[in-house]
Amino acid sequence: TLRVDWDIVKAEKGGYDHFMLKEIHEQPRAIRDTLTGRVKGGQADLSREIALSPEEIREIERIHFVACGTAYHAGLVGKYVIEELVRIPVEVDVASEYRYRNPILTPRTLVVVVSQSGETADTLAALREAKKAGSRVLAITNVVGSTVAREADDVFITQAGPEIAVASTKAYTSQLIAIYLLGLYLARIRRTRSEAELAEVVKHLEELPELAERTLEMEDTIRRLAAEIAKKEDLFYIGRGLDYAVSLEGSLKLKEITYIHSEAYTAGELKHGTLALIEEGVPVIALATQTSLYDKMVSNIEEVKARGAQVLGLALEGDAELHKLADEVLTIPRTLSFLTPVLTVIPLQLLAYHACVARGYDVDKPRNLAKSVTVE
Amino acid sequence: TLRVDWDIVKAEKGGYDHFMLKEIHEQPRAIRDTLTGRVKGGQADLSREIALSPEEIREIERIHFVACGTAYHAGLVGKYVIEELVRIPVEVDVASEYRYRNPILTPRTLVVVVSQSGETADTLAALREAKKAGSRVLAITNVVGSTVAREADDVFITQAGPEIAVASTKAYTSQLIAIYLLGLYLARIRRTRSEAELAEVVKHLEELPELAERTLEMEDTIRRLAAEIAKKEDLFYIGRGLDYAVSLEGSLKLKEITYIHSEAYTAGELKHGTLALIEEGVPVIALATQTSLYDKMVSNIEEVKARGAQVLGLALEGDAELHKLADEVLTIPRTLSFLTPVLTVIPLQLLAYHACVARGYDVDKPRNLAKSVTVE
Repeated sequence: TLRVDWDIVKAEKGGYDHFMLKEIHEQPRAIRDTLTGRVKGGQADLSREIALSPEEIREIERIHFVACGTAYHAGLVGKYVIEELVRIPVEVDVASEYRYRNPILTPRTLVVVVSQSGETADTLAALREAKKAGSRVLAITNVVGSTVAREADDVFITQAGPEIAVASTKAYTSQLIAIYLLGLYLARIRRTRSEAELAEVVKHLEELPELAERTLEMEDTIRRLAAEIAKKEDLFYIGRGLDYAVSLEGSLKLKEITYIHSEAYTAGELKHGTLALIEEGVPVIALATQTSLYDKMVSNIEEVKARGAQVLGLALEGDAELHKLADEVLTIPRTLSFLTPVLTVIPLQLLAYHACVARGYDVDKPRNLAKSVTVE
Repeated sequence: TLRVDWDIVKAEKGGYDHFMLKEIHEQPRAIRDTLTGRVKGGQADLSREIALSPEEIREIERIHFVACGTAYHAGLVGKYVIEELVRIPVEVDVASEYRYRNPILTPRTLVVVVSQSGETADTLAALREAKKAGSRVLAITNVVGSTVAREADDVFITQAGPEIAVASTKAYTSQLIAIYLLGLYLARIRRTRSEAELAEVVKHLEELPELAERTLEMEDTIRRLAAEIAKKEDLFYIGRGLDYAVSLEGSLKLKEITYIHSEAYTAGELKHGTLALIEEGVPVIALATQTSLYDKMVSNIEEVKARGAQVLGLALEGDAELHKLADEVLTIPRTLSFLTPVLTVIPLQLLAYHACVARGYDVDKPRNLAKSVTVE
């Protein structure tokens, strides 16, 4: 008789202990695959995904991103990216709020719904609401043939591949890539940026798989830091601009699987209340990857250090200042400021993962949560 | 010789133990004074505050609320109120984010800056940014002659009276009144609602001082509940729509003065992550004052109860359902759904106050915080 003595489940996990860890490590591949076929002649080309004519694209007056959980955090990055590249006002809303609040929708509103599974109940309801109002709906989803994919006017399929762990990782970074491509494509058609400027962004976008690979190399350091974090019950993330958007996602990851009460703040709001919670030994993860906001972040880090916080800084390679201030510093490879979220989130995902393992909890199936929320 | 044996400071506090408590109790008066002179013939009239001609008001294409801390939370209510009454798209932003993110500003954008002191550094910088871009700026502030009041194009002075406690209370409710009046005035000039509909809202607005008075009567019950809350280290607020906006403010109050790590969530997002933190005995304050969202809230409360949460519900007078589900229920007098924030926030302010007293902390001067943040 044939005896199979290796663990089938472990094989499914590609040799990793958990699906979440496997999926974190798949990100360079997921990013590359999501870019494939969507760059032509050095420019973003979504003409296969978006059936809108150039005239219709030029008529868009407003964009709404609507999503839940991690996909909502991708939408927050979308606001920065699209407003910066295309100068169309963008609103980002949680689907369970959006659908009930009588949003202002017109035929010139483009509604972008983001859902890994394509089955998120509130997101689907928001999509139907938008269509009823005559707005155009673009879906960004990971699942071909999902309800959201079928009902939207246009569909961008992320190529993350099946995501099994409840805590979403590679779906998020793939959604970010979809959003960058969307911004670049709209900017090109509306001519809000020159072809040369756009080509420069595309070039950096195509370097991200390799940079993500390099970011993953810091895993050993993160495992050590996570062992410390795992002992805490409360933790704060601070950041400004895109770093704040990523902080929210980092905080959600930690919450979902380690049950540590973590919260993300825009660093500038600390003085308006939250600073009261900072005392001796409170861990603060401070993101400082945005060059134009760097000095402001340094002064916020000084504020929390002065109250005794234990600071883990996240900065760009070659950073000098933060090493003097923070207790520990992790760095990500340099890229364009507005592409950093794809890299910055990786150490935060790894931190949540290793803190969960250190606490001995079930990584892939956290208590109380389901992979896709198909009920309201 | 004459011997003055009463405490001068206590006299300044009008017989209350702390400025915060005095200011909470001044709210019926502050609301009334903020309304005074701004209702004529049963309609909101801000022609003295806003110099824009009816033509210019009709040309407004977008409104941005920009503020920090508690005033930012007032802005979140503003988005609901103005979009509902006037159907102009409203964006709400934290000033320290807004000023650095290259916001889309045009001469047809009305920027509403909200600041109790009128000296908040980031808000002032945002005001200047907006003016430079040619946008019109309306300031809502409590201090005549403050820098924000002087530099804005138009000024609405709230009549809260001097606010001494670091944790803002009566300034917030007065800002809400200013926002309602603004929404009503714009709706009237742009004819987005009939005169009769607007008069109906004004009638209810004028009842708020009396309803606020009645809301304050539950103080003894709240003192008892606060003694329990004071023993906790983590706490969650949940709500939908306007209740979510008020949850954020309730959570900030608690944080500022009790140093309890509290966090507010849109109830619909619980399933997308935060539900993992809910376990036996975790206190959840659930706001359910929005009639159209009531059933959804009931099912969210069932979710947290099923995980063992200890629920304090906040509902409308005469509520039957919540009493069966929640461990404790507080009720506020009935009014129009979109005016409830003015009342709902009161028990949350009182809860933070009494929890702070129970913990023995300095109510009026919490650690690490200043009354107005005049540095960046």
